Parts: sequence; C-alpha cells; structure tokens
Amino acid sequence: MTTVSFFAPIRENLQAVETLMRQQAADYHHDLDAALQHLLSAGGKRLRPALALLVGKMLGAEIEPLVTLAAAIELLHTATLVHDDLIDGALLRRGIPTLNASWSPAATVLTGDFMFARAARLASQVNSLEVMQLFTETLAIIVNGEIAQLFEGPGLADRAAYYRRIFAKTASMFVLATESAAVLSGVDEAQIEAIRGYGHDLGMAYQIVDDILDFTGDQVKLGKPVGSDLRRGLITMPALCYLESHPDSVALQSVLEGRIVPESEMDALIERIRESEAIAQAADDARRLVHRAIAHLQAFPAGPERESLEALAAYIVARDF
Amino acid sequence: MTTVSFFAPIRENLQAVETLMRQQAADYHHDLDAALQHLLSAGGKRLRPALALLVGKMLGAEIEPLVTLAAAIELLHTATLVHDDLIDGALLRRGIPTLNASWSPAATVLTGDFMFARAARLASQVNSLEVMQLFTETLAIIVNGEIAQLFEGPGLADRAAYYRRIFAKTASMFVLATESAAVLSGVDEAQIEAIRGYGHDLGMAYQIVDDILDFTGDQVKLGKPVGSDLRRGLITMPALCYLESHPDSVALQSVLEGRIVPESEMDALIERIRESEAIAQAADDARRLVHRAIAHLQAFPAGPERESLEALAAYIVARDF
Repeated sequence: MTTVSFFAPIRENLQAVETLMRQQAADYHHDLDAALQHLLSAGGKRLRPALALLVGKMLGAEIEPLVTLAAAIELLHTATLVHDDLIDGALLRRGIPTLNASWSPAATVLTGDFMFARAARLASQVNSLEVMQLFTETLAIIVNGEIAQLFEGPGLADRAAYYRRIFAKTASMFVLATESAAVLSGVDEAQIEAIRGYGHDLGMAYQIVDDILDFTGDQVKLGKPVGSDLRRGLITMPALCYLESHPDSVALQSVLEGRIVPESEMDALIERIRESEAIAQAADDARRLVHRAIAHLQAFPAGPERESLEALAAYIVARDF
Repeated sequence: MTTVSFFAPIRENLQAVETLMRQQAADYHHDLDAALQHLLSAGGKRLRPALALLVGKMLGAEIEPLVTLAAAIELLHTATLVHDDLIDGALLRRGIPTLNASWSPAATVLTGDFMFARAARLASQVNSLEVMQLFTETLAIIVNGEIAQLFEGPGLADRAAYYRRIFAKTASMFVLATESAAVLSGVDEAQIEAIRGYGHDLGMAYQIVDDILDFTGDQVKLGKPVGSDLRRGLITMPALCYLESHPDSVALQSVLEGRIVPESEMDALIERIRESEAIAQAADDARRLVHRAIAHLQAFPAGPERESLEALAAYIVARDF
C-alpha cells in the first residue's frame, strides 16, 4: 500500500487543504506570498492534514471546517519548521533550500510569525472554541519543548525524558490533528480519548522511526550526515537503547556530558550503534506503539477511513530500517 | 491629570491583568518563566489593556473575559517587541536589557513564539470566536507591516505609505483592544464602528507623537540617539513634513535613496528638522487625530470610563514636544 492509497478517501479534500493554505498570503506582501509558496512546495507528506481529514470523515464531521482545521494544522507545522531551521542553521530541508539559506534571520523570523498568525486565523475560522484552545495549547507545548531542549542540552539520557521530548516535538501535533477532528465530529468523551490515544501513539512511533532512520538512512537520501542528532549532542531512541546495553561506552558518555567528541570517534560510535541490536530494539518500541495505536481504532466504525488510519499506522513501521 | 488618574476606574482590573499575564509561564520551563517575568517587569504603560478595560466597562462587558482579553493583547504586544528587538539588534528597551542582549537568537525567537502561543491561548479563553478572529487578523497585519518595512526599506516618502506603516505597527493593536472590548459588550455595529474609529485615531496619534519625540527627545531619556529612525533610513512624520517644505534637501534625498549619509551630515540634518516648522506640523497632525478620536467618543454614555478615554487621548498630545 502506498501513501496514495491511504489518502484515497480524502484525495479531493487534501486538494482543498492545499488550495486554502496557498491562499493565505495572497493579500499580503508579495515576498511573503513567494515565501509561503516556496515552503509549501517543499512538500512534506501532508500526514497531519490527512489524519484530521480521515478522523473527521470517519466520525461524521462536516467537511468545510475539517478542511480549514487541516490547513491550520499543516500551516502551524510549517511555521514551526521555519523557526526550527533558523535555530538549527539548517540550509536544506527535504533537499530544498530553507528560507534562512537565502533570507536574513529577520525575514525568516517574521515569515514564521506570519505563518503562525495565518495558522491561528484558520484555526479560529473552524468556529470551535474548543479546537482553538487545543490549537494554542499545542503551540505552547511545542515551543516549550524546544526551549527545554535548548536549555537542557545533553545529559537527558532516559526514556522518560526522551518520550517527553518527542511528545512535545511531534506527537502533540498528531494529537491535535486527531482530537480536534473528533471534537468537530461531536463524539463522546470516550471516543475522544480513544482517538487521542491513536494520535499520541502514532506520533510517538513516527518520531522514533525518524530517529532510527537518522542512524540507518543513507546520507544522500537524508540530506544530512548519518547520526546527525547524536553529532549535535541529542540522544534519541537508538542511542538510548545502545546506552542501556553499553553503559560504559566512553564516546557516548562524552556526548552525554556535553564534551566535544572528535569526528573519527563519533563516526566509529555511530557505526557501532548502527550495527548493534539497538536499532532493532528501537524498532520494537515503535512497533509496540503502532500496535497500540491500531488497537485504539477498534472503538470506531469499520470503513474506508478506519482502514486508511490502520494502514497509515502500519506503514510507519514498515519502512526500511 | 496623570496616567494614574486615567486608570482610576480600572485600577483593580489592571492588577488582575498583571497577575494573569505573569501566570502564563508558571507550568513551563523555568527559564521561560524567568524571561516572561523579566519582560513584564520592564514595564510599559499598559495602555492597550487599559483601553480594552475602559471601553468594556463603559459598554457593560463582563469583567472576567475583559481581563483575559486585556492580558492577551498586552502579551501579544510584548511578544512582538521580543521579535522586534531581535530583528533590530536592540540591546535596551525602556532602559532595561532586552532578551537578546543576553540570550541567543534561538532562545529569543522561541521565547517570542511562546508568548505568541500564550497570548493566543488567552485570546481563545475570552470565549468569543469574533474576538479570536480579530486577534489573529491583527497579528497578521502587524507581521505583514514588519515584512513590508524590511523589504521595501527606504524610499517610501509619502503620507499614505507612512500612515499604512503606523497603522500596521501601532494603531492596529489599539483597534484590536477597543473593538474586541466592544464586541464583548454586545453593542451594535454603529457603536463598534465608533469605537474602532477612536482606537484607530488614538493609535495613529500615539505613533506620530512617538515619532516626534524621536527627534525632540533627550538622548538619555530616549535611551537611543536622537533621530534614530532617520539614522536607519526610516522616514517618519517629522521628516516627511520637512521633506514637503524642503524637497531639495540633499541629505534627506540621500536617505530616501538608501545611500549612506556621513554621521556629521546626518547630525546636521536632524538638527535642521528639530528646529524647523516640521515638528509643529507633525504635532498638528497628531492633534487633529486626537480631536477626531475624542469626537468618536460622543457616541457613548458619559461617565468615568468615557472621561478617562477622553483624558487619555488628550494626554497623548499634551506631552512635551
């Protein structure tokens, strides 16, 4: 099953989301508009809008506010990427130049701010205060997570801290997409809890798989060096698993203590992690979460949308490690 | 009349706004909390919250959502200052070190983002979709204005462009404060139009006076060199008035064309503007707007709040030029 087929029940709706997002800077400064088009052309799989649309259609939400919600969430996601790339000094994302590769920091900050503003405006046009509150709460969680990462730096080498971090970074927005769509559908609290569970577990699994691919992926495909997280002092699931079975790794301890590790030693450490059982252990954790995500879906009516949500979850852990 | 007496009808409410703003980072990373307290301690006159409170009380709005609205607007204002100071590289604001004077750009961007998130969350807690839409629309206007200024740079030397710029920068938020409070009060469209007019004219006058003080103020009090806007190529009302009566000023033409003007020539140009009739002409324009602002208030019931709104407007142009 390809991503295309997950999206079959919502193909037209995704097109409407795309159109709505691209209109957001039409009445503003032409450079803002150009920046928005560039950022949206950089692609991305539109997973978050797809989640909102599939959940909302499964639960009987009206299409128009659902499309607006989906556009708001994807635009929020894109806005956070703009500020992230600035903060990390990244010059490429998905192989396409980031805004800060060619724009000044000032223009990049403001473009991100503009996209936050438009995302928030779209969220307000969903016409649900509850959705609006979920939206702003999620934004605060994401930003707080980035602040914590910036200030705490290395030294956080336990699973609880890692899970907290990837919840803030990734899963919180999956929860926003699924929960908001359920709220719009007017389902009961138990169903909202179940869909929150799905969004949460799916988002956590998604980030763990991303963190595995950072070790096992191909430098050319990744568009960045293998092990890039570890190279900047960030301990993700594969490194955590490796640490659990190799607590005395000198190089890994150096990373944890925030010391600079010579490149040759770093290369060797990453190679050891790639070839260790840590990769399979991390993948097991992602699979555990995906199974739990799919189990949450059993609370909902069978049909093409639920099938797509199940297939989407399965696909996440079916990628090559 | 001092600012204290304008605020007499709302003194307790302003205290509640202060408390609410200061709670916004309590459950988040302690460095975020410290940054928020620092930024709020830097003061400011709390003009925007005062406007929302006075208008809302005059028109019979409930106090609790009004306080939440006022806190949301002041927090939005503070968030925009954080990103502004970063963009301008300002190290002091109101004589107190800016965040970016001691923090990294990354931390400063994220702190601003967090404050946007909390401002938006407070706005959503006002429980009015219409207010939320005004709020996000205003944020987009402000950011678009900053982008335009960044990209267009100098060369905008007519009143229409200047008015557009100061509407985006300042008056839009005064409109937000007054219009949102009127929306919460449930008054009719004509009254909303009148209060929008008041907020607009007051905000425009306020920025013109600020722009005059940038020329006539004392370097020590301003905390920046006299004529700082012109020094960075920004043509404000006094320079515009001067240009209208001295279209052949070589130094001013150089600024307009984006050329670097030697400091001694710039000093002399600023001195000529300070001593010209341009200052009085700019002040006349501010007075015209203040009179119009006060005229809009005649649509509303007399009482302590209307008196405060009138006095506040009069005070803005009673400052020493």
